[in-house]
Amino acid sequence: MSVENPASALEVSQALIRCPSVTPEEGGALDLMETLLKPLGFECQRLPFDCANTYGVDNLYARRGTSGPVFGYGGHTDVVPVGDLQAWTVDPFGGAVVDGKLIGRGAVDMKGSIGAYVAALTRFLNAPQNKNFDGSLSLIITGDEEGIGQNGTKKVLEWMADKGETMDVCLIGEPTSNDVLGDMVKIGRRGSMNFSLSVRGIQGHTAYPQLASNPIHPLVTMLHNLLEEPLDSGTEHFPPSSLQLTTIDVGNTTTNVIPADAKAHFNVRFSDLYSSEQVEAWVRERLHRADFEYDLQIRVSGESFLCPPGPLSGLISQSIEKITGIKAELGTSGGTSDARFIKDYATVAEFGLLNDTAHKVDEHCSVQELEDLSRIYESMLKGYFKV
Amino acid sequence: MSVENPASALEVSQALIRCPSVTPEEGGALDLMETLLKPLGFECQRLPFDCANTYGVDNLYARRGTSGPVFGYGGHTDVVPVGDLQAWTVDPFGGAVVDGKLIGRGAVDMKGSIGAYVAALTRFLNAPQNKNFDGSLSLIITGDEEGIGQNGTKKVLEWMADKGETMDVCLIGEPTSNDVLGDMVKIGRRGSMNFSLSVRGIQGHTAYPQLASNPIHPLVTMLHNLLEEPLDSGTEHFPPSSLQLTTIDVGNTTTNVIPADAKAHFNVRFSDLYSSEQVEAWVRERLHRADFEYDLQIRVSGESFLCPPGPLSGLISQSIEKITGIKAELGTSGGTSDARFIKDYATVAEFGLLNDTAHKVDEHCSVQELEDLSRIYESMLKGYFKV
Repeated sequence: MSVENPASALEVSQALIRCPSVTPEEGGALDLMETLLKPLGFECQRLPFDCANTYGVDNLYARRGTSGPVFGYGGHTDVVPVGDLQAWTVDPFGGAVVDGKLIGRGAVDMKGSIGAYVAALTRFLNAPQNKNFDGSLSLIITGDEEGIGQNGTKKVLEWMADKGETMDVCLIGEPTSNDVLGDMVKIGRRGSMNFSLSVRGIQGHTAYPQLASNPIHPLVTMLHNLLEEPLDSGTEHFPPSSLQLTTIDVGNTTTNVIPADAKAHFNVRFSDLYSSEQVEAWVRERLHRADFEYDLQIRVSGESFLCPPGPLSGLISQSIEKITGIKAELGTSGGTSDARFIKDYATVAEFGLLNDTAHKVDEHCSVQELEDLSRIYESMLKGYFKV
Repeated sequence: MSVENPASALEVSQALIRCPSVTPEEGGALDLMETLLKPLGFECQRLPFDCANTYGVDNLYARRGTSGPVFGYGGHTDVVPVGDLQAWTVDPFGGAVVDGKLIGRGAVDMKGSIGAYVAALTRFLNAPQNKNFDGSLSLIITGDEEGIGQNGTKKVLEWMADKGETMDVCLIGEPTSNDVLGDMVKIGRRGSMNFSLSVRGIQGHTAYPQLASNPIHPLVTMLHNLLEEPLDSGTEHFPPSSLQLTTIDVGNTTTNVIPADAKAHFNVRFSDLYSSEQVEAWVRERLHRADFEYDLQIRVSGESFLCPPGPLSGLISQSIEKITGIKAELGTSGGTSDARFIKDYATVAEFGLLNDTAHKVDEHCSVQELEDLSRIYESMLKGYFKV
């Protein structure tokens, strides 16, 4: 895979989309990144990680310059599966442009952003006035963001800490825009937790409920308690914390039998008013009220965090307004991203393409949005390094 | 199949158990009944019924005598499947007696009762002092009680009405005893209804609940409303009406997806304070409170009814006390039976063996209980006809 014009966000993005890098496949995407970054003076370090009970994943750390401060970029070349291939109007890995739109898996999440950033870097570093640029730039490009995330950014950051490699700020190119490019910059993320609740009763005949113990009844009480009042009503930068029941399953097909077991799952997205421990306490308090034994399994996907508005988010907002005229909202909505890991090492902010087609059939962005995004990123580089 | 001594409840019951009459199979059981009843002077009428969308079933109507009043007996020779055959200690259709217990499918539900009644009839009608007995006796023996019940007792009763065949009272031999033979006579039954509740929402991502509509949340509210207060606290002859949630099924395996559909089933057993229409209204009122669209499918298995304590239940109680010394409770607990059909044509009361092993592996009764039951039935015949 090669790119004729690496200063073109479209061409780099197309080339990345043509690498079939569904998690955990590298698909040639990181190799391509090396061929693009090395000519710009980056030292590239491939970091394949592996651990028990999961797949191995390849990652890339690229660094240019030695003086501080370090401007970082965080991204992932892995993509989710194509889903219903028959429903796509083009080859999801073809990088086709149709009616001014780049269509393909990863177009917005987030090969488009990486393409826009690499093109911005190419233009910035090849500009005659930056011939002697000695600022520091680094990139963490992982192949494990859409999957379990055990062998990706988290381990790259540990490796970096080990080597003394730091970042001062880090732009994460996740698709944050909602309706138009630039309307949303994310300066934090809600935390996310998944709960698996099981209640065990005693099986019996519906005609003799006094001889059985129906587990569905206390389960309904518990779930009702969870829904009775929201965790909070939101904060300046966070939407209201949200608890969503995602499934209840009993699987009893016999109408005259009281079942022995009932299970429910729910997901909580929480603001910075809560830690995961506090959410757990909030949940358990409401389950306890039902006065019935239960089993609760908990998986914390990420803690909530906020990087309060500051120079990085200001720089992004200014660059967005300069290129598109849009005034960005600083928000924290949506799912988790690798920002949850990077924020422990650097000030982070996230900004990228429109998220409305992410993970869907015919994922796409307009070529115009892609080029505008690249110009916004280039403006940020200029602003950050004051050149 | 023949029976050496038809005056023996055990022998008749064993012979019936040896007929593999799992609904809808006749299995030779009704043929056997004819060979036992005809020598006693009964005219036997086989009544096979059939209707669209279900299996055909054979039934037997037997009648002796022409003068009133008519003492009827209602029973079924069909049995539920054996379940886990490996778990049985004997052949479920072998009629084995082990340690004083008759073990087999139908032992208590309800070939044992039929065996006890046929033996009682045999002794009663063959008694020298009853040589000129001219009272009327009839039996409805169906092959469709454990199944859908569309081609059984209900249709026999319609056929009888058509022919001008009536019953004044009807003893139903369902296993009504709880702890010892004779502790419970049933003089009514609760009604039973099955409800299937569906709620449709809009699928979405748990991170963006405002873009979705979670159907589980209104479903939980609806179910909670149903459980908040009982329908009633019971009446003189009825235990409290009971609503049991039997299953909730969503089947969503993805923790970050809000599903589009959620379903629940529940069963209501209701006292004579309610008709099925009133139960439906009670349920709908509570569902409506959740202020969310729903679909409700309803199947009425039977209305509640009560045959208030009177001569028939009195006769049964006296006979029980005479033979066993036990004072029977007149109750209405448990599931439905063909009493729900017969009560529209005759005064009914139900009395039979212990129900604790009904439908289970190694279904059984003691030989002593069987013989006692037969003597109670014989005492009833003597009492009813004052001979």
